[in-house]
Amino acid sequence: MKVVLAGDADATGWGRWRAELAAAMPEAEWFTRDELAAARVPAAEVVAAVVASPPPGSLVGLPNLRLIQSLWAGVDRLLADPTLPEGVPLARMVDPAMSAAMAETALWAVLALHRGFFAYQRRQREGRWQLHAQRRADEVRVLVLGQGAMGHAVMQRLAPLGYRVQGWRRDGTALAAALAANEIVVNLLPLTPATRGLLDARAFAALPPGAAVVNLARGAHVVDADLLAALDAGHLRHAVLDVFHQEPLPAAHPFWHHPQVTVLPHAAASTDPRSASAVVAANLRALRDGRPLAHLVDRGRAY
Amino acid sequence: MKVVLAGDADATGWGRWRAELAAAMPEAEWFTRDELAAARVPAAEVVAAVVASPPPGSLVGLPNLRLIQSLWAGVDRLLADPTLPEGVPLARMVDPAMSAAMAETALWAVLALHRGFFAYQRRQREGRWQLHAQRRADEVRVLVLGQGAMGHAVMQRLAPLGYRVQGWRRDGTALAAALAANEIVVNLLPLTPATRGLLDARAFAALPPGAAVVNLARGAHVVDADLLAALDAGHLRHAVLDVFHQEPLPAAHPFWHHPQVTVLPHAAASTDPRSASAVVAANLRALRDGRPLAHLVDRGRAY
Repeated sequence: MKVVLAGDADATGWGRWRAELAAAMPEAEWFTRDELAAARVPAAEVVAAVVASPPPGSLVGLPNLRLIQSLWAGVDRLLADPTLPEGVPLARMVDPAMSAAMAETALWAVLALHRGFFAYQRRQREGRWQLHAQRRADEVRVLVLGQGAMGHAVMQRLAPLGYRVQGWRRDGTALAAALAANEIVVNLLPLTPATRGLLDARAFAALPPGAAVVNLARGAHVVDADLLAALDAGHLRHAVLDVFHQEPLPAAHPFWHHPQVTVLPHAAASTDPRSASAVVAANLRALRDGRPLAHLVDRGRAY
Repeated sequence: MKVVLAGDADATGWGRWRAELAAAMPEAEWFTRDELAAARVPAAEVVAAVVASPPPGSLVGLPNLRLIQSLWAGVDRLLADPTLPEGVPLARMVDPAMSAAMAETALWAVLALHRGFFAYQRRQREGRWQLHAQRRADEVRVLVLGQGAMGHAVMQRLAPLGYRVQGWRRDGTALAAALAANEIVVNLLPLTPATRGLLDARAFAALPPGAAVVNLARGAHVVDADLLAALDAGHLRHAVLDVFHQEPLPAAHPFWHHPQVTVLPHAAASTDPRSASAVVAANLRALRDGRPLAHLVDRGRAY
């Protein structure tokens, strides 16, 4: 089975991934487009592509492609490529190890917001010793936007600690009502035309005073100016942001030095080549054996 | 039943505590020493004391005292009072809500250390977007010093997330061997003559390079100069410190502005009057009814 590798999986290119993919599926052959050309392998022999933020056009000219497997959980940028071959099944990365990593980040953020650890860290920089009131976890209501594998993993980690956890998905209950009933919002929605800009002035106004926002999904879910206004007006207490409209976050962006914003460099949950390669291999073997493919994207709903 | 309140339970004196104690045990009468004198209640009628960091001498002249119930989990300062009535049973505060609060703080610190969130927060202040490698929880070994209610609560929260958790108690395995096998140490030991200064240069040297220390017990467990030397030598990566030799931490102390030290103002787990008052009432009723008292301190081992 010949598989094309497209995009840049990490800073080392495909170096580490290639070793893990080969170990997970020794019977497959892996080529970048350049390697395919250099080895004079006919493009028609390629049946699958493993992609990591491929530049637009990366998959053009592969007439027998039967699976596009993303290494990332989000496929919004992939779907924005007008040359993406139509009618070819497209699979997202769904890896329990990645969901666990996301849940760790969400848990850290919720614990820090609930117990006021960001405030204590600010006070440390000011050399201020000042205790604030301590609340129990069962007094804190957390709303998790998005009910995919990651949203569920987050809820499963928060609930045993006593947090009152509510899940929300589009087409479920009204967003404003869900926001009004919770003081911490963790966003894990897919980015689609229906969710872009969902966290805007209206959404923030629906949250109770002193609420906090944790965005671990996509920068474009948030209207930055509205978030800054809600923080500066004192309505929101804090924001933990892992994702941004432009990444890396531009040096001049006010998020960088806002005292109530915690900026992470898209670090909430990286795909781990060790476990993700097994997920890729399982889907490629399903393709080879004619079994159902896993984690397929519905292009109509865009996730 | 007449009960003396000694010390300062919180910034409001006994204000909030008095309401919770009265609700938990309406049949008891609560007096500070001043109130006792003002009401001309004979000191001989007082059978129990509820204490919160009482100044030395606070319990002198109460001839029929049969229980000293601390509101705090640690009784090291209480035992250091040479006037503390001998032979009177002394009970620590053991409250599941307090153990849960401690576990939240430990979990937050371990998550932050494991995933490098303190490093990301430092980079944010420098305006630096830089991702570091992500490890799975099952690649991180955590040592919990102290195997009381709080140590167990911490271990019970860490293990389900996948961390490799080891507990240690004095008189168990050698400390150096336990330290050598773990990269994050969470200290929840009682402060006794045997544990004072336990976290010193030798202990830090036993930890693997890049290890981190979380001290949630007592400042005197740590030799500050040794910790700073281990951080500055690059042997230790980070320390999260909630407790200090002197509290509030003096303004000139190097911990305040050390980039690899997170300072909390003794905030890891405050006694919650709502749940702790029920613990106090249960022990006072046991005293009244002649049933066994709970959470008694062995003055010989000092906890």
